[in-house]
Amino acid sequence: MSTSTGAQVVIARLLAAGVDVCFANPGTSEMHFVAALDSAPEMRPVLCLFEGVATGAADGYARIAARPAATLLHLGPGMANGLANLHNARRAFSPVVNIVGDHATYHKTLDAPLESDIEALAEWTNGSVHRPATPDEIAAAVDSAVHSATGEPGRVATVILPADFSWGPAEAGVPVPAQRQPAAAAMPIEAAAALLRERGAHALLLLGGAANSAEGLIAAARIAATTGARALVETFPARVARGRGVPHFDRLAYLGEQAAEQLSGTTDLILVGARSPVTFFAYPGKPGDLVPPGTTVHAVAPSDLEKLADHLGAAPYVDNPAELAALPSGPLNAQNWAQVIATLLPEDAIISDEANTSGFFLPTATAGSASHDLLTLTGGAIGQGLPVAVGAAVAAPHRPVIALQADGSALYTISALWTMARERLDVTVVILNNHAYAILQLELQRVGAAAAGEQSRSLLDLGRPDIDFVAIAQGFGVPATRATTAEELAEQFRAALAEPGPHLIDAAVPGLSG
Amino acid sequence: MSTSTGAQVVIARLLAAGVDVCFANPGTSEMHFVAALDSAPEMRPVLCLFEGVATGAADGYARIAARPAATLLHLGPGMANGLANLHNARRAFSPVVNIVGDHATYHKTLDAPLESDIEALAEWTNGSVHRPATPDEIAAAVDSAVHSATGEPGRVATVILPADFSWGPAEAGVPVPAQRQPAAAAMPIEAAAALLRERGAHALLLLGGAANSAEGLIAAARIAATTGARALVETFPARVARGRGVPHFDRLAYLGEQAAEQLSGTTDLILVGARSPVTFFAYPGKPGDLVPPGTTVHAVAPSDLEKLADHLGAAPYVDNPAELAALPSGPLNAQNWAQVIATLLPEDAIISDEANTSGFFLPTATAGSASHDLLTLTGGAIGQGLPVAVGAAVAAPHRPVIALQADGSALYTISALWTMARERLDVTVVILNNHAYAILQLELQRVGAAAAGEQSRSLLDLGRPDIDFVAIAQGFGVPATRATTAEELAEQFRAALAEPGPHLIDAAVPGLSG
Repeated sequence: MSTSTGAQVVIARLLAAGVDVCFANPGTSEMHFVAALDSAPEMRPVLCLFEGVATGAADGYARIAARPAATLLHLGPGMANGLANLHNARRAFSPVVNIVGDHATYHKTLDAPLESDIEALAEWTNGSVHRPATPDEIAAAVDSAVHSATGEPGRVATVILPADFSWGPAEAGVPVPAQRQPAAAAMPIEAAAALLRERGAHALLLLGGAANSAEGLIAAARIAATTGARALVETFPARVARGRGVPHFDRLAYLGEQAAEQLSGTTDLILVGARSPVTFFAYPGKPGDLVPPGTTVHAVAPSDLEKLADHLGAAPYVDNPAELAALPSGPLNAQNWAQVIATLLPEDAIISDEANTSGFFLPTATAGSASHDLLTLTGGAIGQGLPVAVGAAVAAPHRPVIALQADGSALYTISALWTMARERLDVTVVILNNHAYAILQLELQRVGAAAAGEQSRSLLDLGRPDIDFVAIAQGFGVPATRATTAEELAEQFRAALAEPGPHLIDAAVPGLSG
Repeated sequence: MSTSTGAQVVIARLLAAGVDVCFANPGTSEMHFVAALDSAPEMRPVLCLFEGVATGAADGYARIAARPAATLLHLGPGMANGLANLHNARRAFSPVVNIVGDHATYHKTLDAPLESDIEALAEWTNGSVHRPATPDEIAAAVDSAVHSATGEPGRVATVILPADFSWGPAEAGVPVPAQRQPAAAAMPIEAAAALLRERGAHALLLLGGAANSAEGLIAAARIAATTGARALVETFPARVARGRGVPHFDRLAYLGEQAAEQLSGTTDLILVGARSPVTFFAYPGKPGDLVPPGTTVHAVAPSDLEKLADHLGAAPYVDNPAELAALPSGPLNAQNWAQVIATLLPEDAIISDEANTSGFFLPTATAGSASHDLLTLTGGAIGQGLPVAVGAAVAAPHRPVIALQADGSALYTISALWTMARERLDVTVVILNNHAYAILQLELQRVGAAAAGEQSRSLLDLGRPDIDFVAIAQGFGVPATRATTAEELAEQFRAALAEPGPHLIDAAVPGLSG
């Protein structure tokens, strides 16, 4: 058993657990971690210019690599800046291991300017917190954080690393084998089969988590075909297989009224890796719980889905892909931009979708696209799309990553563009630029707020001045172009895909109401 | 007593307490607040594209207006994005009133995607939390938040406003007169006078808070002249009067070794609105508490400083301004850029200083500048400089605001530029662009971390690719230029000051070591 610095032990334990990427925005208290990287070439550090980029990238990485990346954050304020995308990671059940530097143990009592309650922030993510009490507990703290993060379901684990532990000697520890916790209790296969046979079209499978893999979706399609049961994908899946080769299921709608319609007639709702559905927000006089009154809610484990299909004697899945629209022409609108992307989408692409209102027509358009994975905004904390694309591209360097990004949300973590340039990531960002918080223009009406005045409108439009994403992207070192017609978008999208490295297309897509 | 919607009550109570600016980044749960703005033209809404811009702007506003602005934030994730600059506001003792929308009360139990523990975040700011239990408690909650925020010292107060309270009817309430809490206990004037007479140069006044006003500094100078006592300004003052007309005191140094030297020989440290000094970070083998062993620490109320000078029979203050250097020439370096700003600084300017390492020569250079106020980075949570400049410019529309901004920190809240453009604020941003986290290159050595490798260096430099702030500023609608020589900086700075509205100068200032 050798003795190293605490920082070296952290890196060694991460590497031993297979965590070999660290999305970092370090500060003074993390300088020994930074220095320790030089003796650990297996650990890949990726610099992000804001912590929300680092945490969102770790989320995107986990969704594609199916294992955690580390983040390196600077004390409480650094963790605070990363919180919103950790919230999304929590909702995606993504495993993430935060390494948060803290003041030296003996410096804590002084209430130095950057002092704050890091535990409170870490606990806010609904995750686990691991603070070694002595340098010799560092190895165990990192092991147990990785263990916690990679449990079933995945979660956010935070190691708080005092600076004096980081720079002092620490025991290197011995490997602890990672153990996965058993999945949540679910119906036996036989009972599920009997239920599905009996209820037919009154049963509805709501697919989430691992059920949204190609295998899961195919099993669901087989079950639906043989029993008449219906199936929907959860509203905001962390990752869902899409396009040719996998069946197309509608997603449960974001708008409660539409979701209620999709669920009507259901007597038995079977959750397969999904949560029981609720609306995002409450609206005056409308229900928040989307389970129809009188409906019984069941659960089936995603890992049982294929066995269930076999048990039912379902026939093998035969792909019957939706037809792809021809390339459209004319000025961009809310529908034709999605057709362009859908038609030109390369094989095995990853889409990071934060198109928000502009993405209304996207699911239908891409049903017949080349096979791809779709990553969505799981926790509603906007500013996730570009960081998740960074993480996905680091996780899968040979797959094209497409970030479909609403303009307003893009500005929360716009510096992700720089990390794309620094790391030469193959990400094509398409900004859906409607010069508005269009979702809020919609929500303003939906919550029944009467507002037509200058004061209230000023908070929902992003004009005066219009934002020029081409200039901003170029400022961050990402080549960029502007498209105003479907033809231009197609030409620029093709060119971006053909050239390695990141590109941005600022697409002038008017709002749904625009 | 009239009945309005809860949102209208919130705005009415804010206005009644003199809070008439709201830095906003709203979401669905805040739509009724947005709508209510139309019936309250006295409330000025200022849209920010990221919550950290809104909270930092409220901090800057408070430092200049000496009263709180409101922020409007969207649930827990919105508050999370604003936390780092609330941390700085906390350290500045700035009064800030956050209005954070929450889910409707009956929606909370559903654990909807954006659900989180807002109280935990609000408490993290060391501030007060006000959640009305019924709609009729809204008025009292807002009143008590304003009361708490504007106490002595100022703090961050957070009102959590459930959406159903916001849209439902609520009692408008009756005005509660704001009461300031008494200032913290301090020495009587007579005792302080006796101590100062006895100790002379062994006594040191550490000036913070209100003692850093022109009046406070002048009183401190009179006291020093008559007793031989020394005086220093705290390391990171929220606001300090500077330039001609006020005495120049050194600030307590950021580096512990230098601070220790400044404090050596002190037997009696007299805190006047300042905290007892500690280092920002711990360093191996160096002390964190800067009070020299054997030194007695006392306190004097800032409001007693002038009386103390009179009691001591100190002569009136006679200004003896430092000489201003002539305009320098040649390629920009760490020193001459500060001379350009110092020489050309207009009368009554406000400087928001987040120049970090690039600002090393700034305090000396500006000692003889035209009279101005300086706002510094109080809590060490970077990304504050541009938002604080926004808030200061909203608070003082007729004063020129100069944001001296390090490149790395600028990127945390770069979208503040757009709010400057939207609101046509008279802010001149000078980016000190050394293409590095230069503070960390320094800190890496100071913490004794051995690091010379490619991996560790990659986390501290901001090149590959270089960031083009001219392009980024133009993308956000702010006219921008680039300066590489002192002559260019002078010409561009003059031009920016002469034209209304925001401007950005990307100044190629090599790092101290560069």
